[in-house]
Amino acid sequence: MQGPAVHEITELTVDQCLRLLGTQVLGRLVYVVDGTPEIRPVNYTMHQGSVVFRTGYGGILEQVHRRPVTFEADHADRATRTGWSVIVRGTAEEVWRTTELEIVRDSGLRPWAPGPRDHYVRIVSRSISGRRVV
Amino acid sequence: MQGPAVHEITELTVDQCLRLLGTQVLGRLVYVVDGTPEIRPVNYTMHQGSVVFRTGYGGILEQVHRRPVTFEADHADRATRTGWSVIVRGTAEEVWRTTELEIVRDSGLRPWAPGPRDHYVRIVSRSISGRRVV
Repeated sequence: MQGPAVHEITELTVDQCLRLLGTQVLGRLVYVVDGTPEIRPVNYTMHQGSVVFRTGYGGILEQVHRRPVTFEADHADRATRTGWSVIVRGTAEEVWRTTELEIVRDSGLRPWAPGPRDHYVRIVSRSISGRRVV
Repeated sequence: MQGPAVHEITELTVDQCLRLLGTQVLGRLVYVVDGTPEIRPVNYTMHQGSVVFRTGYGGILEQVHRRPVTFEADHADRATRTGWSVIVRGTAEEVWRTTELEIVRDSGLRPWAPGPRDHYVRIVSRSISGRRVV
């Protein structure tokens, strides 16, 4: 039942993490509301080394702006049971500078859930870490 | 840039959520440590309508046992930009009854990360909700 582990886990470098983050479009935003852990799937893009996602006014934006958030993206291969997971810890911050907004708007980033989501939020990262199971 | 939404979002029933949870093996466990949101990828299985995952002693187990946790699993089709996400809110609780342990041990559940993970944790759900983007 508890056979020998045939998989090994490797810690990834920040460079590797950033490269892997660039290969996915769907991640998960994690934040705390009244002590309760919340999670939302978000489509994201990488902009100058930061995770950027779209959201509507109010709701998530109010709950995360300038607060600690954690972001995760992963990829798993069910057949080989290998995969990786990258976790970004930091603070969410709305992108509001016109020049930056133009760039992220042009990135083609589409929100995961439909509806008006005209606000762009960047995660100012405090740490980026990742693990790969090989 | 902000063209008309071509996707629609549908709230899923609990039945649909449970069925979809049964189609995946990798989910994400979300919890709070000292006010900071934490997230970990976990392989899971469904046991009597509950999410069950494996973990080692200490670490995550201590941080989540009998505390509020949130769990998420999702699936996205990049080509069609459709997908679903199911969120389970509840309390984590170690599975310790011998009869139950035998069943979940026989489920073939393997931990995402290698290493000794001989403890099984169930999420006693307070709510199960999900959304599908079609």
